[in-house]
Amino acid sequence: MTETTTPKIAADDPVLETAFGQEMVRQMRAIDAYGSTDNQSAAEILEPFVLTKEEKRELPIVGDPDEIVIARIQVFYNAIAALIEQECGRMAVPLVNLTHEGFGRVLITVGKLVVLDRSLRDVHRFGFPSLGKMKDEADKHLSIAIELVGEHSDVAGL
Amino acid sequence: MTETTTPKIAADDPVLETAFGQEMVRQMRAIDAYGSTDNQSAAEILEPFVLTKEEKRELPIVGDPDEIVIARIQVFYNAIAALIEQECGRMAVPLVNLTHEGFGRVLITVGKLVVLDRSLRDVHRFGFPSLGKMKDEADKHLSIAIELVGEHSDVAGL
Repeated sequence: MTETTTPKIAADDPVLETAFGQEMVRQMRAIDAYGSTDNQSAAEILEPFVLTKEEKRELPIVGDPDEIVIARIQVFYNAIAALIEQECGRMAVPLVNLTHEGFGRVLITVGKLVVLDRSLRDVHRFGFPSLGKMKDEADKHLSIAIELVGEHSDVAGL
Repeated sequence: MTETTTPKIAADDPVLETAFGQEMVRQMRAIDAYGSTDNQSAAEILEPFVLTKEEKRELPIVGDPDEIVIARIQVFYNAIAALIEQECGRMAVPLVNLTHEGFGRVLITVGKLVVLDRSLRDVHRFGFPSLGKMKDEADKHLSIAIELVGEHSDVAGL
């Protein structure tokens, strides 16, 4: 873990109070088997998701994603799935499939309906310019998913 | 590779002539980067998919699936996806997600419709009692998938 002098997420960032922010923290704590985040604030726990332009520039263009990055991607899509579930009242199941080379595909299904389907690439560079941008992306996926469930509730109920 | 005295698949097994049998051979050749199956017959290429009761009994209950077994599972579901595609005229995309411990989930999607969704376990013991039983299982998945596409063609067309 690298120490940064100015935190990339302010302790009072309003995103931390949203359902998405709280779900992200919950998911991060859920995968933390050794309690290493026990004494961390929400802002500290989510800080690894924020990659500034400068940090991104320093990462190699091609690289193998390590386990921590893969876990973070899982957390992000797990959180989206949890919010879909809360909004539509049906189980949403995420499936993250990554190759060693950092390519992959993410699906979230509700019943027999695919509500999110994304190709991933450059997984080792996973991160967002800010916490707000991360929430924007999650919100976009969430609203598309909820709309799909509404339009095809028969398939979502299968 | 282990040598067997009596082949587990007869050279004139009628399954080898079916669309499924031919697709399985095509998929096996497709992943064979070194041409090691070039001189093998269809029956020989598909032989590893047949596990007799005795062979299964000799396998450990718990084990890590090796790359060859994982490739075979991919081939089996790729073949099913290819047949779905041929029958319904729409792209069918398989997604096989396995953990190191031999558990996993397989999905095949057509548009935004999930036409196959299976949990896998004991992946290192993947195999069928006979070539005919393997085709029966594929046919079952195929007919369910085609029925789903027929019932929900709007979602399959998304």
